[in-house]
Amino acid sequence: MNGEVLIGIDLGGTNCRAALVSLTGEILVLNKVPTKMHEGRDFFLARLFRLCDDLIQFAAREGLRVSALGMGAAGVISPTGTVTVSPNLAPLNGFPLAAAIQDQFSLPTTIANDANAIAWGEGILGAGRIFSSFLTITLGTGVGGGLILDKKLWKGTDGSAGEIGHFVVEPEGRECRCGSRGCLEQYASATGIVRTALECLERGEDSVLAGLEPEDITSLKVSEAARGGDAVALKSFRETGERLGQVLASVANLLNLDGVVITGGPAESLDLIRPWMEKEIKARAFDIPFRRMKIVRGELGEEAGILGSARLAHDELVAGKKRVDLGPAEN
Amino acid sequence: MNGEVLIGIDLGGTNCRAALVSLTGEILVLNKVPTKMHEGRDFFLARLFRLCDDLIQFAAREGLRVSALGMGAAGVISPTGTVTVSPNLAPLNGFPLAAAIQDQFSLPTTIANDANAIAWGEGILGAGRIFSSFLTITLGTGVGGGLILDKKLWKGTDGSAGEIGHFVVEPEGRECRCGSRGCLEQYASATGIVRTALECLERGEDSVLAGLEPEDITSLKVSEAARGGDAVALKSFRETGERLGQVLASVANLLNLDGVVITGGPAESLDLIRPWMEKEIKARAFDIPFRRMKIVRGELGEEAGILGSARLAHDELVAGKKRVDLGPAEN
Repeated sequence: MNGEVLIGIDLGGTNCRAALVSLTGEILVLNKVPTKMHEGRDFFLARLFRLCDDLIQFAAREGLRVSALGMGAAGVISPTGTVTVSPNLAPLNGFPLAAAIQDQFSLPTTIANDANAIAWGEGILGAGRIFSSFLTITLGTGVGGGLILDKKLWKGTDGSAGEIGHFVVEPEGRECRCGSRGCLEQYASATGIVRTALECLERGEDSVLAGLEPEDITSLKVSEAARGGDAVALKSFRETGERLGQVLASVANLLNLDGVVITGGPAESLDLIRPWMEKEIKARAFDIPFRRMKIVRGELGEEAGILGSARLAHDELVAGKKRVDLGPAEN
Repeated sequence: MNGEVLIGIDLGGTNCRAALVSLTGEILVLNKVPTKMHEGRDFFLARLFRLCDDLIQFAAREGLRVSALGMGAAGVISPTGTVTVSPNLAPLNGFPLAAAIQDQFSLPTTIANDANAIAWGEGILGAGRIFSSFLTITLGTGVGGGLILDKKLWKGTDGSAGEIGHFVVEPEGRECRCGSRGCLEQYASATGIVRTALECLERGEDSVLAGLEPEDITSLKVSEAARGGDAVALKSFRETGERLGQVLASVANLLNLDGVVITGGPAESLDLIRPWMEKEIKARAFDIPFRRMKIVRGELGEEAGILGSARLAHDELVAGKKRVDLGPAEN
């Protein structure tokens, strides 16, 4: 093993997971603590620093040197690593988190939006390796996205790019928690899949899911029912596929990408989604971008964010975009 | 004046316009010939070469040297300047047009999609100067688009990027000539504006436009009626604005751009479109990308394609992306 390792951190509203990661994407040790953001910023920072310190000391005991730290965080992250806005990490809003970590450990630190970190991970170590330009779509409670253009992460002017989940797919459609209507997220997320099924059940459509309490219906249960041939469950995945396809047709026409990487829980059901998705893209996109854009499942699973943020920190360091100011430079 | 000038060509299905252009965007002379593509490729090439030759000789008489030739053409243009697919220039499909021009005149030649050329022109010489990353939307018979990201033209893998006109804005909406339904073009183009008005008239809505023969109604006439307070005409521009806004909300969330430049005939009515457009973007996009994305009217008018393609050729030459192989290099 190379003597150089990285720290990768996945900071969510509920948990903060941090790992020591090799350059080839092997996780050497992974620690998890509750985020507990309600206790305030200082308590959180103390817990985060302890977590990082443990990893740095673990590395030292193994004769390894941590060369960079990367974090994927749920929210809009500025190009310099300030948390611009994060509903789930509100006490950090406006806080220069990357600078604080960098100061604490003299470690080059890169913070990205969590979906962007996943996209970078899939691009370097996962299913996006074969593409120069691709979109990663993360299907979970919501729908996240990250855009890699010409092997570079496209963060946008304020670092807020990649929000494919809030593409308008049905202008007068389902209300979205973002304040808009008919966002992709309302149809293609795990929540959206369940919502489609519940709407069918409310209309009295026959389904094995009718035997469950509504609050017990998950996208996994809908998926199992679909595999058993349940018409309502199949309809949920058809809706997901068609809506993803409508959005991806627009994306294909606008960006002419090499591919799309789909990750997250419902991506396990990509076989149920794909036929409807591809039918819509074929019907709506121009032929050249449609034929170019391959759609594949993510390969890195739950660790994509940790691996991606660690690699992003490493790659920005190598590219010379990051350096730690350790005092006045010698002339 | 600098001794160096450029040739800029706008190749459309009906006319081919070619001009001698200064580096600062001044048009020194402009010639126009009918494209007459039905006569076949060889006849067209002969006409095109004569047009270029006239400009080169004109320059020589003025003591000027043509340093590069740029063309904007209606269709998908490959990164090397082959016409991949162009419905309006079908005899050129598959033909390496840039290479043919380059061989004929030993002149570095760049061909881009016409809307991309307009975007480049507005970015260097026009309303996009203030932006690093922006989308140009060209409202005409159809809706074209060009995307500049970090001061570079985003052409996509096959050179087909920028087709904002075929964004899905209403999945079950109006049929589009591209084979899809509910494309932006069907609502926001000059044709779309007229179509909205005609649909209102067919429903018997009261309007000054009802006094015209349907085939005499143009987007300019709808605009004049709107300025006179006509309810149907105002509704047409509201529809245009709302649909543009729905698409731009998605674009803002996905790309977090600095701005949007709107050009073409109906852009003259941007004041009628803007309130509805901005209302939709505000309601649907996240606050940070919404506040960032300034929407302005194009400044270069009908010459945008000529100026943009000329500048693109120049800028690619300067960036070292283009060179003319004039025989074996000396060692």
